[in-house]
Amino acid sequence: MAKGGKDWKARAEKLKQKVEKLKALLAAAPAPTPVKTKAQKPVSPLAPARFPVLPAIAGAEFSAVGTGIKYQNRKDVMLVRLAPGTAMAGAFTRSSTRSGCVRDCQAKLALKAGAEGAAIIVNSGNSNAFTGRVGEEAVAAVTGAVAAALGMPSTRVFSSSTGVIGEPLPYEKITAKVPDLVAGLDGDAIEMAAHAIMTTDTFPKGAAATLQGEGGPIHIAGIAKGSGMIAPDMATMLVYIFTDAKISAKVLQKLVSRHVEATFNSITVDSDTSTSDTLLVAATGQSPAAEVKGDVAKAFETALKGVMMNLAHQVIRDGEGATKFVEVRVTGAVSDADAHRVALSIANSPLVKTAIAGEDPNWGRIVAAIGKSGAEADRDRLSIRFGDILVAEKGWRNPDYREEDGAAYMRQPELVIHVDMGLGRAKRSVWTCDLTSRYIEINADYRS
Amino acid sequence: MAKGGKDWKARAEKLKQKVEKLKALLAAAPAPTPVKTKAQKPVSPLAPARFPVLPAIAGAEFSAVGTGIKYQNRKDVMLVRLAPGTAMAGAFTRSSTRSGCVRDCQAKLALKAGAEGAAIIVNSGNSNAFTGRVGEEAVAAVTGAVAAALGMPSTRVFSSSTGVIGEPLPYEKITAKVPDLVAGLDGDAIEMAAHAIMTTDTFPKGAAATLQGEGGPIHIAGIAKGSGMIAPDMATMLVYIFTDAKISAKVLQKLVSRHVEATFNSITVDSDTSTSDTLLVAATGQSPAAEVKGDVAKAFETALKGVMMNLAHQVIRDGEGATKFVEVRVTGAVSDADAHRVALSIANSPLVKTAIAGEDPNWGRIVAAIGKSGAEADRDRLSIRFGDILVAEKGWRNPDYREEDGAAYMRQPELVIHVDMGLGRAKRSVWTCDLTSRYIEINADYRS
Repeated sequence: MAKGGKDWKARAEKLKQKVEKLKALLAAAPAPTPVKTKAQKPVSPLAPARFPVLPAIAGAEFSAVGTGIKYQNRKDVMLVRLAPGTAMAGAFTRSSTRSGCVRDCQAKLALKAGAEGAAIIVNSGNSNAFTGRVGEEAVAAVTGAVAAALGMPSTRVFSSSTGVIGEPLPYEKITAKVPDLVAGLDGDAIEMAAHAIMTTDTFPKGAAATLQGEGGPIHIAGIAKGSGMIAPDMATMLVYIFTDAKISAKVLQKLVSRHVEATFNSITVDSDTSTSDTLLVAATGQSPAAEVKGDVAKAFETALKGVMMNLAHQVIRDGEGATKFVEVRVTGAVSDADAHRVALSIANSPLVKTAIAGEDPNWGRIVAAIGKSGAEADRDRLSIRFGDILVAEKGWRNPDYREEDGAAYMRQPELVIHVDMGLGRAKRSVWTCDLTSRYIEINADYRS
Repeated sequence: MAKGGKDWKARAEKLKQKVEKLKALLAAAPAPTPVKTKAQKPVSPLAPARFPVLPAIAGAEFSAVGTGIKYQNRKDVMLVRLAPGTAMAGAFTRSSTRSGCVRDCQAKLALKAGAEGAAIIVNSGNSNAFTGRVGEEAVAAVTGAVAAALGMPSTRVFSSSTGVIGEPLPYEKITAKVPDLVAGLDGDAIEMAAHAIMTTDTFPKGAAATLQGEGGPIHIAGIAKGSGMIAPDMATMLVYIFTDAKISAKVLQKLVSRHVEATFNSITVDSDTSTSDTLLVAATGQSPAAEVKGDVAKAFETALKGVMMNLAHQVIRDGEGATKFVEVRVTGAVSDADAHRVALSIANSPLVKTAIAGEDPNWGRIVAAIGKSGAEADRDRLSIRFGDILVAEKGWRNPDYREEDGAAYMRQPELVIHVDMGLGRAKRSVWTCDLTSRYIEINADYRS
């Protein structure tokens, strides 16, 4: 062979070896990490398949616009106009540092209302909380602008703000868009409104019910936002429920107060109570059905509670970083308060929540959470179940319990942890989610 | 050129291209993840540079052995023999599901002691908690074996167990090693004992003090373990403090009870209270110094509190996944209880703790934590400082506060968050750490 030929052959063989070596190295290298962008926010694995079809509520119109307060290229303010005669009720955070909006709503709900109608305006991206007198001026400016545009007293305009705490709200960005908001009002735009109030939420939340009244149907439709800072105290995050029922503000308030405890006050993502938690319920009275009373009142109460519970559960399904939806069910307690205390202690325990994230049936951590709750407990009468699996009873592991059964149960996306205290007849459930690294990621760079 | 030569050349050139392509791909691939082994547990970045030199305590001897209860290839049981005349004091978890060891220690401390001496035996890897009557039998077997081997009544043998909750303790592994433990007793082996009681700890914890008594020096030396499930209620995790002081059990107990509140009861990693929290303090009385009284009593109290505080802080410095050591200082509260409530609410807030992990000066979350605490608060009188930086006052952000100053402050490893309530004169501090993804990793697969 020619000299040149020999050289090329040797070189080719060396290169061939190099190719094999590089191929092997490449095969051993981990897959490249996908580039993270803020836009690619994955939807919670626990989200419902789709936003439900919500019935139109006669007398309630919705609109939403983008103002760029914090988020760009999305709608961030919603407006709801409610027809004259609408009855309003509500529930709010009990935080001592609650926002100006919350204080303003509370003051306005306490006033005797005429038949002027009402409005609700909500922005996301800034909570206007702990912003002092300037914050109160912002509330007055926003609700005043809406009142003027809709021709109603500002005492009938309710507002909420959600997002970062402590930053001044650039309210002129909202007031400048009030004409656009009013122009866009539409009875079928509730889903758009549900989108506009989202912050770290990965999906918009809606729920509805329809019942038969005397003389026609009564509709209920609600929307909510909430994902982190979820440990409600009289209500959770932002929830707006609309109905065409004919019902007085007084009766409506009674129903809301009665059921807020077992619904919005029984969910927790991270034990952190927001400064802005607000639930507003508006009844326009425009259903063809007669005034809610008797058997219809009972059906209405059940339907309203159902919508409240559904929305509360959706907030947990969108818990920051959640991969598991968990009911902590406590029975056999000496009092409701004790049952609630034990359920919350388990639901808020970081060690229980990380065990659930790891699909580890670490029931010892449940025992520790019961112990620290302060509720009356007797080790030898306690029992613990994962779903129907009896894990422990009489102060001791159930001898028939097999760890692999517990482990298999924990791999499901929806779990029931059932503790029976064996002491009394009181019971309460609390709903929560697991605590994952994603929660840390979301919250360690929320503002950056 | 020959035909063969041409072929080889073309092949070599193609291969060369391939090499370049593979090199580029390899350069773009992420660095291979280091293989994780349980042995490679990184030491907390907040750990002290080294284990301190602890003075020998006359009348206290230590030993440690490996029994393989859970951990392999390491020591997991420690024994301490205390000379006749030793006075004992303690503080314990108030959990209603506290372990058999804790109940046993409490019962034994309540007994009037003779001059028989005492012993402490501790195992790591299994907490023997919520193990019912079988658990109580395990405690009796272990303390009985030690009592027999050391020739003292079992009422003077105190025990602790730390690790997984709810699993039966294979106590015969411990009793089988009691002769080895006794044979190994050594006045200088306290550091080995500190290693034996570690679970998820990344470093052993020790602290000491020496003071001048009347007629000679008095020594204090303590060891502790604790890293997760840290929200003490009367004590935290396992702490053993030894002194050669001449002091009665009654006076010693008074000092321990007085200072446990501001030390071990003022730290929190994750708000989860353990079922096994135990603090035992033993005074052998073998110092040449006279009985502790008068000015020496004051100096002794100060020194003892210093050792307790030092060990409490080391537990936080070893908080699971911790990268920041944080003092939450609350002043100007209407009562001590309110000051403690606000400090704990901030220190336990997952949103505050994740913000700290992200070095984000997100003081709005501190406002929310104050608000949810239930303590008396007036938005317009509150002030918040990061170290010496005034962030907010009078219900509003300090106009001179610059976000970049707050951000620079948060990059330090040791932080002070100072909240002044502006209402009264009561004050309390609580120490905590940040909440990182590492906490989740550690706890999502603790048992696997």
